[in-house]
Amino acid sequence: MEPPVKPPTDVRMRGFAHRSTVKQAVNWIDAQSGKLAHEAVSLWRAAGRVLASDVVSNRNVPEITRSMMDGYALRAAETQGASPYNRLEFEIVGQSLPGQPFVGEVQSGQAVRIMTGAPLPVGCETVLPAERAEATTERLFALDEVSPGKNVGNPGEDITRGTTVLSSGRVLRPQDLGILSSLGHSTVEVIRQPRVRIVITGNELLPAGSEPIDARIPDANGPMLAALVQRDGGLPILTTQHSFPNSYLVPDDRNAILAAMNSDADIVIVSGGSSVGQEDHAPSLLAEHGELAIHGIAMRPSSPTGMGRLQHRLVFLLPGNPVSCLCAYDFFAGRAIRLLGGRSPDWPHRQVRLPLARKLVSQVGRVDYARVRLVHGEVEPIAISGASILSSTTTADGFVIVAADSEGHAAGTEVDVFLYDQ
Amino acid sequence: MEPPVKPPTDVRMRGFAHRSTVKQAVNWIDAQSGKLAHEAVSLWRAAGRVLASDVVSNRNVPEITRSMMDGYALRAAETQGASPYNRLEFEIVGQSLPGQPFVGEVQSGQAVRIMTGAPLPVGCETVLPAERAEATTERLFALDEVSPGKNVGNPGEDITRGTTVLSSGRVLRPQDLGILSSLGHSTVEVIRQPRVRIVITGNELLPAGSEPIDARIPDANGPMLAALVQRDGGLPILTTQHSFPNSYLVPDDRNAILAAMNSDADIVIVSGGSSVGQEDHAPSLLAEHGELAIHGIAMRPSSPTGMGRLQHRLVFLLPGNPVSCLCAYDFFAGRAIRLLGGRSPDWPHRQVRLPLARKLVSQVGRVDYARVRLVHGEVEPIAISGASILSSTTTADGFVIVAADSEGHAAGTEVDVFLYDQ
Repeated sequence: MEPPVKPPTDVRMRGFAHRSTVKQAVNWIDAQSGKLAHEAVSLWRAAGRVLASDVVSNRNVPEITRSMMDGYALRAAETQGASPYNRLEFEIVGQSLPGQPFVGEVQSGQAVRIMTGAPLPVGCETVLPAERAEATTERLFALDEVSPGKNVGNPGEDITRGTTVLSSGRVLRPQDLGILSSLGHSTVEVIRQPRVRIVITGNELLPAGSEPIDARIPDANGPMLAALVQRDGGLPILTTQHSFPNSYLVPDDRNAILAAMNSDADIVIVSGGSSVGQEDHAPSLLAEHGELAIHGIAMRPSSPTGMGRLQHRLVFLLPGNPVSCLCAYDFFAGRAIRLLGGRSPDWPHRQVRLPLARKLVSQVGRVDYARVRLVHGEVEPIAISGASILSSTTTADGFVIVAADSEGHAAGTEVDVFLYDQ
Repeated sequence: MEPPVKPPTDVRMRGFAHRSTVKQAVNWIDAQSGKLAHEAVSLWRAAGRVLASDVVSNRNVPEITRSMMDGYALRAAETQGASPYNRLEFEIVGQSLPGQPFVGEVQSGQAVRIMTGAPLPVGCETVLPAERAEATTERLFALDEVSPGKNVGNPGEDITRGTTVLSSGRVLRPQDLGILSSLGHSTVEVIRQPRVRIVITGNELLPAGSEPIDARIPDANGPMLAALVQRDGGLPILTTQHSFPNSYLVPDDRNAILAAMNSDADIVIVSGGSSVGQEDHAPSLLAEHGELAIHGIAMRPSSPTGMGRLQHRLVFLLPGNPVSCLCAYDFFAGRAIRLLGGRSPDWPHRQVRLPLARKLVSQVGRVDYARVRLVHGEVEPIAISGASILSSTTTADGFVIVAADSEGHAAGTEVDVFLYDQ
């Protein structure tokens, strides 16, 4: 593997002398992004979280022999020959309800009314379903035979003591919470969610959703990044420790940006000021106070992306342009968030493989993030004049990645499309 | 379409005389489940919500002509012939920053230092990127030619005034929030989330996560259903209006169950007591006080499922057995929640189509929900003794639905697998 070239400390208004490859940036992220520590969370909040260690059953589920149907517990042999034309009669001597067992032993010729989940009375080894019987309060008429053990659940049938029920690293399903509850767990140990500080720079920006004023425009990246971080299992942090409103917008000021990069978080995402403009302070600040490992990447859009460390924090410097910001987030910051959270580093997007409707052109030497539409089962590249068109990511159904060594693909070539919608 | 047969008011301990088909139950749900009303939510909370009406742009984005690169704004014609061997000199007369435009008009032989997103000064029609220039504070040397309009974003280039940017019914993507913010929206009108009251019945049950005591076992369905409701865009409600702890557990008592079914919600899910046992009060209560439209469905598991209305509320009576509860939720309650919330009624599970490793047997006349594992690209049905084994849904990778008119499928047949994991 080719090591990344250490970028110069300050590239402002000089341009990138060298760009790292996407692969180098990804390798750097993978080397830096170990899983976070455990925490216990309530079962009620555990769906979608990542299990921190194996769950081994310390008991049998069920612990008792129980009925799997509503009906009548009795002796199987005594139903032999029963049919609607040969109704066999039993005395109903009591009932067994879930949590309220029948007390005593059932004798020959007797039956016990039993509900699903209720303990099977002593002396019985089968359950005749209600719909194959006729009954009064005290008399049962069996209309069918039933074999021993039928409609009966045995101890440990669902889970046997000592079984590894769920393995470390599993993303918890709804039904897993049911299993954990059955085993008596009220909480579960999961990987802590990465705390991701979102820092949006740019003196021209107004808080998201503001009306534009003169040359000042509302920030588009804050709400987008917050939603992306949540999608990847992270906890977005949008306020400084003083929690004043809209403090996620940080002025183009070296002290303010450094303070924001130093905030309490596992990952800091800085949007804007990542490039080589004179107001692009974040890269040089990171180089001075921490490590600027990568700056400038051979890709389009998002080439002015940087990343590094400030103490224990991973810092991602994403371009302020919203499409570049989205693309760089998906390639780099999202990957780090997923890895810290114990998740697969792979993109969470659903993939389909379909033929191109038209030629998709790309430049050799850089990775391309091409927005596409799916039309009648074919992949149509969206014609756009620039990389900066955010609406291209809302009109698109997804995107295609063209590798750095490719000139693109001819019409008809099958390509993998990553879909924006789940 | 065959109309569902009106079930008898009280089938307790008599069995189902008739079972509806899955299709009849689904048709009933679809006829009952209109979209809920709108509500305005903050952009910051809007990801994944369903847009209630079209969003039409009331402005151009961008509103100004702006630079798409860091570099130097100048007159394109004056760069003609520039190269590293023919450095053409310009006077730098000022700067244009985002939100802080250059004031005045740029003359021949002049250039303005400009940052990405900054307004293009009057008199210029192109931007020379920083990396194709050398500069001191006052002098610029162009190292390359640049054509008119290059690296410049025009008004309305991203979004033109009057365009329908996002259509009603769309599930909002992270980038959609960026677009909405750019248009000056701080909130967005979305379909209200269905409020789903979860009612778990069964005297044998202890709150989820409790240690089992004697024949009493911890509830497994509450946390599972809460997670499923959230997955489908609903808001689970687990307490009564008095909010006492674990009040989601309701005793097998007619008054208590009726009160719970009457709670303030769009949908009520009752788990347990849905069948024909003598403690199965919910179906007869619904028939007496509202409408029990369907009771008993030709499927396995989950055949003792019921559904109906109590005033404006849809009520789903799901079997207490956790696998049946999961299956009936996915077939019926989940569908209603998605429809009320304005979402696609289709299952949210990702699908793959793969060949069966072994024969999958099913009984004609009922729909089967078969848990399967994926092994080396083949679908292996999980051999289970009963439908009640919850661990079958945690060891499985997904499930296959076998239609009512099918006896199952031979080994090698390609089947659609619905995957439990996203």
